[in-house]
Amino acid sequence: MSPTSNYQEETTSYSRENLLIKLDYAHYMKPDEEENLKSVHLLQRVTNYLAAAMIFLQDNALLLEPLTKDHIKERLLGHWGLNLIYAHCNYLIKKHATPMFLVTGPGHGAPAILANLFLEGSLEKFYPDYGLNMQGITKLVKFFSWPGGFPSHVNSEVPGQIHEGGELGYALSVSFGAVMDNPDLIVTCVVGDGEAETGPTATAWHSYKFIDPAESGAVLPILHDNGFKISEETIYGTMDDNELGALFTGFGYKVRIVSDLENIDKDLAASMEWAYQEIRNIQKHARSSDLKPIFKPRWPMLILRTPKGWTGPKTLHGQPIEGSFRAHQVPLPHARTDDEEFQLLDSWLKSYRIHELIDVEKVKNGASIAKAEIIDQRVLDVIPNEKLRMGSRKETYAAYKPLELPDPREFMLQKGEIVSSMSKIGDYAAKVIEANFKRFRIFSPDELVSNKLDHVFEVTNRNYQWSSRTANKGGRVLEILSEHTCQGWMQGYTLTGRVSLFPSYETFLGIITTMMIQYAKFVKMGVATTWRQPHGSINYIETSTLWRQEHNGFSHQNPGFLNNLINMKAYLVRVYLPPDANCFLSTLAHCLRAKNYINLMIGSKQPTPVWLSPEEAEIHCIAGASIWQFASTDSGIDPDVVLVGCGVEVTFEVIAAAHLLRKDAPELRVRVVNVTDLMILPHEGTHPHALDHSTFESLFTNDKPVVFNFHGYPSVIKSLIFDRPHTDRFTVFGYEEEGTTTTPFKMLTANGTSRFDVAIAAIRGAVHTGHHSLLAIRAHELISGYMHQIREHEKYIEKYGKDPEELFKMPKFD
Amino acid sequence: MSPTSNYQEETTSYSRENLLIKLDYAHYMKPDEEENLKSVHLLQRVTNYLAAAMIFLQDNALLLEPLTKDHIKERLLGHWGLNLIYAHCNYLIKKHATPMFLVTGPGHGAPAILANLFLEGSLEKFYPDYGLNMQGITKLVKFFSWPGGFPSHVNSEVPGQIHEGGELGYALSVSFGAVMDNPDLIVTCVVGDGEAETGPTATAWHSYKFIDPAESGAVLPILHDNGFKISEETIYGTMDDNELGALFTGFGYKVRIVSDLENIDKDLAASMEWAYQEIRNIQKHARSSDLKPIFKPRWPMLILRTPKGWTGPKTLHGQPIEGSFRAHQVPLPHARTDDEEFQLLDSWLKSYRIHELIDVEKVKNGASIAKAEIIDQRVLDVIPNEKLRMGSRKETYAAYKPLELPDPREFMLQKGEIVSSMSKIGDYAAKVIEANFKRFRIFSPDELVSNKLDHVFEVTNRNYQWSSRTANKGGRVLEILSEHTCQGWMQGYTLTGRVSLFPSYETFLGIITTMMIQYAKFVKMGVATTWRQPHGSINYIETSTLWRQEHNGFSHQNPGFLNNLINMKAYLVRVYLPPDANCFLSTLAHCLRAKNYINLMIGSKQPTPVWLSPEEAEIHCIAGASIWQFASTDSGIDPDVVLVGCGVEVTFEVIAAAHLLRKDAPELRVRVVNVTDLMILPHEGTHPHALDHSTFESLFTNDKPVVFNFHGYPSVIKSLIFDRPHTDRFTVFGYEEEGTTTTPFKMLTANGTSRFDVAIAAIRGAVHTGHHSLLAIRAHELISGYMHQIREHEKYIEKYGKDPEELFKMPKFD
Repeated sequence: MSPTSNYQEETTSYSRENLLIKLDYAHYMKPDEEENLKSVHLLQRVTNYLAAAMIFLQDNALLLEPLTKDHIKERLLGHWGLNLIYAHCNYLIKKHATPMFLVTGPGHGAPAILANLFLEGSLEKFYPDYGLNMQGITKLVKFFSWPGGFPSHVNSEVPGQIHEGGELGYALSVSFGAVMDNPDLIVTCVVGDGEAETGPTATAWHSYKFIDPAESGAVLPILHDNGFKISEETIYGTMDDNELGALFTGFGYKVRIVSDLENIDKDLAASMEWAYQEIRNIQKHARSSDLKPIFKPRWPMLILRTPKGWTGPKTLHGQPIEGSFRAHQVPLPHARTDDEEFQLLDSWLKSYRIHELIDVEKVKNGASIAKAEIIDQRVLDVIPNEKLRMGSRKETYAAYKPLELPDPREFMLQKGEIVSSMSKIGDYAAKVIEANFKRFRIFSPDELVSNKLDHVFEVTNRNYQWSSRTANKGGRVLEILSEHTCQGWMQGYTLTGRVSLFPSYETFLGIITTMMIQYAKFVKMGVATTWRQPHGSINYIETSTLWRQEHNGFSHQNPGFLNNLINMKAYLVRVYLPPDANCFLSTLAHCLRAKNYINLMIGSKQPTPVWLSPEEAEIHCIAGASIWQFASTDSGIDPDVVLVGCGVEVTFEVIAAAHLLRKDAPELRVRVVNVTDLMILPHEGTHPHALDHSTFESLFTNDKPVVFNFHGYPSVIKSLIFDRPHTDRFTVFGYEEEGTTTTPFKMLTANGTSRFDVAIAAIRGAVHTGHHSLLAIRAHELISGYMHQIREHEKYIEKYGKDPEELFKMPKFD
Repeated sequence: MSPTSNYQEETTSYSRENLLIKLDYAHYMKPDEEENLKSVHLLQRVTNYLAAAMIFLQDNALLLEPLTKDHIKERLLGHWGLNLIYAHCNYLIKKHATPMFLVTGPGHGAPAILANLFLEGSLEKFYPDYGLNMQGITKLVKFFSWPGGFPSHVNSEVPGQIHEGGELGYALSVSFGAVMDNPDLIVTCVVGDGEAETGPTATAWHSYKFIDPAESGAVLPILHDNGFKISEETIYGTMDDNELGALFTGFGYKVRIVSDLENIDKDLAASMEWAYQEIRNIQKHARSSDLKPIFKPRWPMLILRTPKGWTGPKTLHGQPIEGSFRAHQVPLPHARTDDEEFQLLDSWLKSYRIHELIDVEKVKNGASIAKAEIIDQRVLDVIPNEKLRMGSRKETYAAYKPLELPDPREFMLQKGEIVSSMSKIGDYAAKVIEANFKRFRIFSPDELVSNKLDHVFEVTNRNYQWSSRTANKGGRVLEILSEHTCQGWMQGYTLTGRVSLFPSYETFLGIITTMMIQYAKFVKMGVATTWRQPHGSINYIETSTLWRQEHNGFSHQNPGFLNNLINMKAYLVRVYLPPDANCFLSTLAHCLRAKNYINLMIGSKQPTPVWLSPEEAEIHCIAGASIWQFASTDSGIDPDVVLVGCGVEVTFEVIAAAHLLRKDAPELRVRVVNVTDLMILPHEGTHPHALDHSTFESLFTNDKPVVFNFHGYPSVIKSLIFDRPHTDRFTVFGYEEEGTTTTPFKMLTANGTSRFDVAIAAIRGAVHTGHHSLLAIRAHELISGYMHQIREHEKYIEKYGKDPEELFKMPKFD
């Protein structure tokens, strides 16, 4: 495939020489810069000291008195390895006045980040207790990884962060999401060689293929290859330079290995300068009218090979520490009790000679660290001004501007029409795109076409840079067959102030279950801070749902994502199962407007009836659940039995069951309820949407049998309503893990959710609660009749390979 | 890092020439072979025909009458693209009499596989209805993707399969699991270019770094790069040869691109022969005493670049089909209704000229296809004998031999000892390794050291080939920081007859939630067949559990894997929360013995008390739950309140609560119950382990308040006991998504699971059910006192950064 003539060919080839980039230092470092690099080094001396102190000390933060074992924390966590990179980011930021922040994948890296944030003043900006003075430094050191203090992983309580390296694998995709539509921004992303082993990271390297250098910023990945995990070598640590060069060249990068330990500051500074120039050159080509954009540009990446535990103690009890797995996290785990370790810690902390850089006596007496009391002013030289400091970047905490949203009613249909909700959602999303230039994207692991959302393509394209096809250029839609990558992109994009939509096959959204959970945890801590401003919600659409995956079969039938989502904090979680296109439109508009939530919308891509008028739909969605009078006996007054539908197909069956019962057993008073907002169900007070007792009873009665036909696993409903009173009258139907390649109706009967199953349960419930006119023969006869019908339908299906058509006609009520 | 002197260096370098392998055909193909390749081509002509017929036809399978639209299925699914590879596998197998089978990642690939299985007789072997005759072929064609027939993805109902390509991403890791400890076996693994975009596939390419060529077989990966997904280009389709060469060379492969469309059979046959020789050469070096093993051997892989929809219709309605996304799955979706599509289908099916190869008239009249009625015998020439046929390989359905298991009682401890369950499990696993040479492995995303399972290393090593360290050689333990890869390896290893253990941090096991679900679906269908023999269970250990991740913090606290597991079919799922080391040993022995299950064991790595003697532990584990008399009033007879613990730390709190109550409120009769087998809880009959009503009542009473202190999310217990009678007397405590870096005890109070919370709930429950001597002042006073104690403990924690020690002393009962 040759690029279109609008592009310049990437000139470098894949020859051996080009698999690893060699630098002419003179080209990337002016003669006078070596002097400046001393500042970079001195900053590291202070932050290395601070990070080590945070890990080990609970008192005597500045070593103002001789170290004793009592000064040492009982629980030791964290490592200090990120100071080198942080200092060099600062250097580059200051040199070019370039907007940049840092995303770090490696777990337990918080000490280094916090030390830098403290010293640059970003910590004090958001947490006045952490001032650049004796009180501040004492708090910083003692309360690190201490109950009530900052944890050993950066989280959303830490300024400048949009990602927590708890569950590894996502730093890279999150970084790419952050730079999309942020044309000047560079996110430096540190990927540890542990994290690099994960699948999500392994495929996220492809993300640059989706970055248009004209409209988006750049990620500078730094693979920090120090060779060891907790007790063993890493894969990337055992790969030699040639292997790494080939691999990442293949991923599309120019690969520069930084490993000159004798001159690490020079090597890293020059390499970062090289990377910076490469990035700006690619962007210049894409943005300037005088130049042609580069086809398949090879973006720069760095591989930093430094020994694990560098600058820490060299050996312990005769075993090497530095450069071995023993340096993972805490190299002297028994410093509080073991004499040799204690001595090593003492020498190690002293080795940074912090007293030569900071006048600790003056600080003790109340002086501020940032000002005159720094003995060697060069320590602070490298820290950028407040606007450019990585801990203060607005993108990371205050960039959100709500979307302009069209009125969903303009897209709604008349009652009785048969329509695919997704095709209407596609129409609506198209308008959202038009109204929100470069603030809204759609990330999808499936193709929009497959989810019937392709109306979006009437106003936009895909956005894929490795293709020469115009259909893959310039658009708002990013499709990659990696749920992990989509989720990471969405997180980065959302947490930097924009909004997106993540449509997926219902079954495969579960792939990112734990990413969603990690995100929920990040947001939970973030909303509890005083300084983080709201951001948009993340918005999932589950479609191609299990009940209509009868053709793809059993492997495509799994609604279980929901089972995890409902365990997250109630104030973060919203789950909707809109029963028709009108309700779905109303729901989507609401979700795109909402802040900080995790919204899950579940609906069908197949054509299904519009049950409610636009006005009714809006009211229904606000209520979350309501009695559907048209399908109920006497509009649902004083029922003998309540039939509940929650989900598109199972609601259809509930309505059909009501239709059967009103015909076959008119003495049984039936009420039909639809639940569109799942979170009305739990006990009053446990979720903001939970109905109060009397409203709950006004829908479900206090004592009548309820047949609840649910879209997903019954366990969801059972756990949600458990604490409601009198639950033994509830019969919950749902997906029972029965499926194969079959027909839509067979899916329902196989799982006991068909109209006949619902009708049978209704009759049994009524008999059980003493409905006299149904008792004995009559109930038995009705139930036998319905069972017979199930069998007859199944015979028809086996014979003709399809469902009887009349089963899907919209029931007509008198 | 230089290899040890025991190794030969890999001689090929990473130069440009070596990024893509060029073949001297003469070296890999004898002059007379070209004639043999005609058989390969003819076989494809038949299987291509059959696959197309299966996709489109419901009748007239052999075109014995003119095609009409009525012959066409209403629902069309599947593609035929794997026939080329299948035929060439057959060719290679026959040439070398080499054991091989095929794992295919791409979804909807079943028609090609089934066509080949039919023709080679493997289908008939397991399904006599699918004989090589008119009845068989009619059934094959009509019932493909038909209710009751084979689905469009291969699943466990299909002979020769150990993997279902439903959720994409796992074919490669499953293949590697299958060849481990199967030294002669080659698994050819087809990875689609859609699947290649997934993270799990992206990192699974590293799997060869864990394959010791002396003890294990080989995987031959074929990346089938046809350029398109459903409607768009794939990433790998847009990468040029140089990019692909660099990437996979970096992953450690020798990369051969097969793309000579004019001579595809020659190109593919020579390339597979090359790959075969490369594989056997690496193995020879590793296995022969005369040669040195090759360090970092570069294993062969093929990239097959063929147009999508090859051999299908070329254009439709003026648009190209072949070589475009329109060939994804079904290229003529409206053949039943559209005249042009119908005509194209007719010509397409005829283009295979099946009548020239099979005497269809004779077949119609009852002749067998395999025998004399084949006009051109060369069609069958390439099919291997029965023993070597890919659909009949024992490894895929009948290779299981149970493990030799030591008696767990030999490892058990006396009551009252304080021990890490994981250290004992490490001891036990070490013995299992010794007793089961090359039939047992441990796959772990964490390091065993981190989960305190490192006693295993007293008898074995890790197994990592890219390292020169002996600690990483020759062992039974595979550690990779990729849960996905571990899961895939385990599946492949288990389904080929061996047994393994997958220990993980509890929180991060959720990463493979949907892989577990896909596996559960595969096994569910498999156990329903008559011909698949049992295989071992897959065995998860969740440790480093949330209650003791107080140091790692909130991101390391997620017990949600369980919430999905319990939705799987009851007869597949076993969940255990052994309360102490003795119970854990008994449970592990049981799990390693069990067949076909998904076993989840949850326990602590921290030292905790042994509550039960070896004999008591065995009885407790068989019962699944029992009254712990030592902690109960009068051994638990006639209680006022039942306190239930399920999980290590929460059970400790229940016992401590009982201790408090028996001291502070001796008039309240307390019963303590421990649940070790979670699946005793659901309603009688819904799970094989579910207690009958009377046993359930004998533990939990019929009417007394029950405080259920659970290890995970309360939703698990709520959904499990929902259908039990009188559940409104149950108060369920568990993880409420409250956590940060804190202390173990603060974790409990933050989530309301501490002894004080349990005691308060017990008193409230007793008062609510009319326990007169506790009413009014007394209850109020007790509750206030316990609340006060919570506050006092929290103050202590904030001050000292640790828990008061007395909280973790084992309660002594009189």
